[in-house]
Amino acid sequence: MAEGELKLLGLWASPFVMRVRMVLEQKGLNYEHLEQDLSNKSELLLKHNPIYKKVPVLIHGDRSICESLVILQYIDENWSKTGPPLLPSTPYERGITRFWAVYIDDKLQASLRGILMAATEVAMTEKIADTHAALETLEGAFKNYSAGKDFFGGDSIGYLDIILGSFTVWIRVLEKISGAKLLDEAKVPLLVQWEKRILTVDYVNKVLPSVERLEEYGRALRATI
Amino acid sequence: MAEGELKLLGLWASPFVMRVRMVLEQKGLNYEHLEQDLSNKSELLLKHNPIYKKVPVLIHGDRSICESLVILQYIDENWSKTGPPLLPSTPYERGITRFWAVYIDDKLQASLRGILMAATEVAMTEKIADTHAALETLEGAFKNYSAGKDFFGGDSIGYLDIILGSFTVWIRVLEKISGAKLLDEAKVPLLVQWEKRILTVDYVNKVLPSVERLEEYGRALRATI
Repeated sequence: MAEGELKLLGLWASPFVMRVRMVLEQKGLNYEHLEQDLSNKSELLLKHNPIYKKVPVLIHGDRSICESLVILQYIDENWSKTGPPLLPSTPYERGITRFWAVYIDDKLQASLRGILMAATEVAMTEKIADTHAALETLEGAFKNYSAGKDFFGGDSIGYLDIILGSFTVWIRVLEKISGAKLLDEAKVPLLVQWEKRILTVDYVNKVLPSVERLEEYGRALRATI
Repeated sequence: MAEGELKLLGLWASPFVMRVRMVLEQKGLNYEHLEQDLSNKSELLLKHNPIYKKVPVLIHGDRSICESLVILQYIDENWSKTGPPLLPSTPYERGITRFWAVYIDDKLQASLRGILMAATEVAMTEKIADTHAALETLEGAFKNYSAGKDFFGGDSIGYLDIILGSFTVWIRVLEKISGAKLLDEAKVPLLVQWEKRILTVDYVNKVLPSVERLEEYGRALRATI
């Protein structure tokens, strides 16, 4: 195990940062959260993520790891004896889990971002439809892989719960902004129940911002379109 | 280890398929390659990759794994005792390796595809510049992480060698199509030497198509712009 202090270069409103914080909390690791101003990037951010200049960056001693999915796997592998494993134990289940993680960050994220930044009613309608399609696909994945259990990870929270969990507040904010029901009991009943369960978990709640605060942030971003 | 026959739904010209075949060859695994016609998608492809309907898909017994990076990690983890490991052993090195894998598939791939499909001279110039920038970034990564050794993986071929290696013939084809030097000794001398070394490896050579055949394919694609 690499030694050294943990620092997280983050941004409170970023789902990619929220997921890293959830896992750090879940593992009970002490870390310093250094909130970044992306309009005036710090020397620390430019030094530790010269390629993308984005958050999150996990600094561990004198080394750094970038990209949230890479960071989550790093934490899981480096502190494999601390707390429950994030990824499943068999190669096949790990593969399926990695597949859906990329799906969430690719399809669902793009459609949610599309709603946030939709400049026309046509674009908004299209992105709402994309979000419904992505959530319905994830409903099917949950049905197949949770096999009647509480979480994507089975009886306890795993990689996909953390990754999708980091979008839950944003989804509720985007429902308010768009006026459309996204996590709709009629369309994705299992995910609606899953969301209720995940929001009762202490370390998830500790990290997620309130809908009100994030809505204000989202509306300010929309005002820049 | 899951039991069962291996089938690969592939396409000879796809770098994402080439990399999977390289690892299957490296591990000495028997598999059946089923060339797909993406203009008339097979029942098998639609059944095993209903989400993206793309190649490669690795079918192992009655299960399937999609997305090339996920497939490579699946093969590495499922046949961990067969042949050298694809990913390094420490969590930090694994993290760095995963970071650069995504960089290659994100930045380099997009710029190469941009050259292939550039419809105007302005677009072509821009995508050539993007490719130079991505390759120079990878030159720096190679310098840092190979530490004077022959491959990204050190003394033997690893995950990044396979992933970047799957683009080598495409890069040479796009040099012919664009008229620009991309793997340029003056700009990326380490990568030029690396390319020579990787092309001497039996199982890499076995999988890569000839520049001539791929150039014909690339020019036919450009004719559809």
